[in-house]
Amino acid sequence: MTKTQQQIQLARRPQGVPVHEDFRFETIPVPEPQQGEVLVKTLYVSVDPYMRGRMQDTKSYVKPFGLDEALSGRVIAEVVSDGEHLKKGDIVIGNLSWQEFSAVSESALRKIDTSLAPASAYLGILGMTGLTAYFGLLDIGRPKEGETVVVSGAAGAVGSAVGQIAKIKGARVVGIAGSDEKIAYLKQELQFDEAINYKTAEDIQKALEDACPDGIDVYFDNVGGPISDAVMNLLNEFTRIPVCGAISSYNAESEADDIGPRVQSKLIKTKSLMQGFIVGDYSDRFSEGAKQLAEWLKDGKLHYEETITEGFENIPDAFLGLFKGENKGKQLIKVSDPN
Amino acid sequence: MTKTQQQIQLARRPQGVPVHEDFRFETIPVPEPQQGEVLVKTLYVSVDPYMRGRMQDTKSYVKPFGLDEALSGRVIAEVVSDGEHLKKGDIVIGNLSWQEFSAVSESALRKIDTSLAPASAYLGILGMTGLTAYFGLLDIGRPKEGETVVVSGAAGAVGSAVGQIAKIKGARVVGIAGSDEKIAYLKQELQFDEAINYKTAEDIQKALEDACPDGIDVYFDNVGGPISDAVMNLLNEFTRIPVCGAISSYNAESEADDIGPRVQSKLIKTKSLMQGFIVGDYSDRFSEGAKQLAEWLKDGKLHYEETITEGFENIPDAFLGLFKGENKGKQLIKVSDPN
Repeated sequence: MTKTQQQIQLARRPQGVPVHEDFRFETIPVPEPQQGEVLVKTLYVSVDPYMRGRMQDTKSYVKPFGLDEALSGRVIAEVVSDGEHLKKGDIVIGNLSWQEFSAVSESALRKIDTSLAPASAYLGILGMTGLTAYFGLLDIGRPKEGETVVVSGAAGAVGSAVGQIAKIKGARVVGIAGSDEKIAYLKQELQFDEAINYKTAEDIQKALEDACPDGIDVYFDNVGGPISDAVMNLLNEFTRIPVCGAISSYNAESEADDIGPRVQSKLIKTKSLMQGFIVGDYSDRFSEGAKQLAEWLKDGKLHYEETITEGFENIPDAFLGLFKGENKGKQLIKVSDPN
Repeated sequence: MTKTQQQIQLARRPQGVPVHEDFRFETIPVPEPQQGEVLVKTLYVSVDPYMRGRMQDTKSYVKPFGLDEALSGRVIAEVVSDGEHLKKGDIVIGNLSWQEFSAVSESALRKIDTSLAPASAYLGILGMTGLTAYFGLLDIGRPKEGETVVVSGAAGAVGSAVGQIAKIKGARVVGIAGSDEKIAYLKQELQFDEAINYKTAEDIQKALEDACPDGIDVYFDNVGGPISDAVMNLLNEFTRIPVCGAISSYNAESEADDIGPRVQSKLIKTKSLMQGFIVGDYSDRFSEGAKQLAEWLKDGKLHYEETITEGFENIPDAFLGLFKGENKGKQLIKVSDPN
């Protein structure tokens, strides 16, 4: 009898905020690995805000998810059949479908070293998350010693890495996040100089002014929306703004839902730069970034948090939680333990 | 008896669109040049949109004009008293007050060569205007052969230079301007590939799509507002947007008057860059730019238009006309003929 497993598919394209009904659990056979492939068992699945964009059928930097097809993303898996290069028990990372087992070409998998850091770190601080923070901040933001760096979504996976790297570079770091627990984490555990709870601040503009008496030199933007509108009023000359995410607008149903003060006059007055990017733009420099991040991690200069949800069936919930700001640090789902 | 002359002062800070009452004509003495100074007679005065910003008392890249003090800007003048280096009859350029005669330090004046081009060209294509186009387009926009360059305010002094330089660099150039006469000028005289009259286009978005079948690689933004909102929907990957002016918003009385679709998501999806700049950012490279512009002008590759208003008393009118799009090319005021 063929063994079966669960797969999560895109049942329909979300209207505004995604809901459970946009996902479908489908029972499918566990595949047989073909020539050049190995069978892998899913250990950890990464859910990320950018996936919201892929659920829409619009022109973007990544292909949209297909309707009635499996969703997919970065996954840590265990090799459970011997291949030519990979052996049973190897822990690997790759872009895999959201299902319990996959048959995958060996060349699409990269073996990871779990003696350096736990496997899950390769979905976070040592993976795309850490590299996004590293290249966005250092290549576009270019913080200098003593400058003020503001980061929104500061307690998230990317944001918390950005703030810490900015501190390593000698900048004064101000984080914006959405709960008192996150604020305490940023200030006490990550040593941010200031942190603002945008949900309880009476006047976000005033709170930013108080936290940034010397203005803002770098703004690492993870959120867009009204928070970024407020930041734009405090730019110094030649401010650099890496535009990494706009989570506040990902669920906008139309352009009319994402309206705010235009930025042109502010950019001219301050001669500032805004630049959208994705980590893939830096793929030829990944090894440089990964090496530096691993070094900082080993030296205890970089800390990371994970929010780990247990169980394959909870992947949609964990994804939906990203838009409610439920996660602190990297949001992962643990699907199974290694054998 | 002391000779007198007219000076134009800032009588009050404009509320929204400037009006005549914001200016005051004052009778003042013709000054006596002191040691190291020469007396100069104003020939041509330049009026520029950026001056609107200086009329406001807000943080910007240039000091605001003082209330009840003379307005000032780039001026071509004739030396009428012999100095140490400058002689009577020399034609010079400098930042001078809006008045008929000035006593100015010789070191604040630069002698210009009127055999190369008419004196007025030094306020336009060979001056800050041409340099703004040159550095903004080439340093930030970086057009490549075959790319599509869109320029707004295309029939203005900066815009018309931008389009022509983009053509020299082998790009396909689409201009946006506000009258059929300007459209004809762009297409027939300046050889733009396409030109859109935003005032008569039924749907500016559709008109842009038709004019840019391959999307937009460089957008030189002189206007901000709804025109730029429409452009932002057609960005290709890695589009570069030099943000030079936002004339549509200069008269906004508050932030609430300059509201539009937020740009963050669009910048991320296309990995594009917006950068505010002013020509002064490139002051250490002015000689490079001026040399190249003069060469193109000499070779007949660069054409320019001037709208010359006659008479000192018409300076405020000419300035106010900028915001109604009345000028084609550089707006100047001819105050007097050389002796």
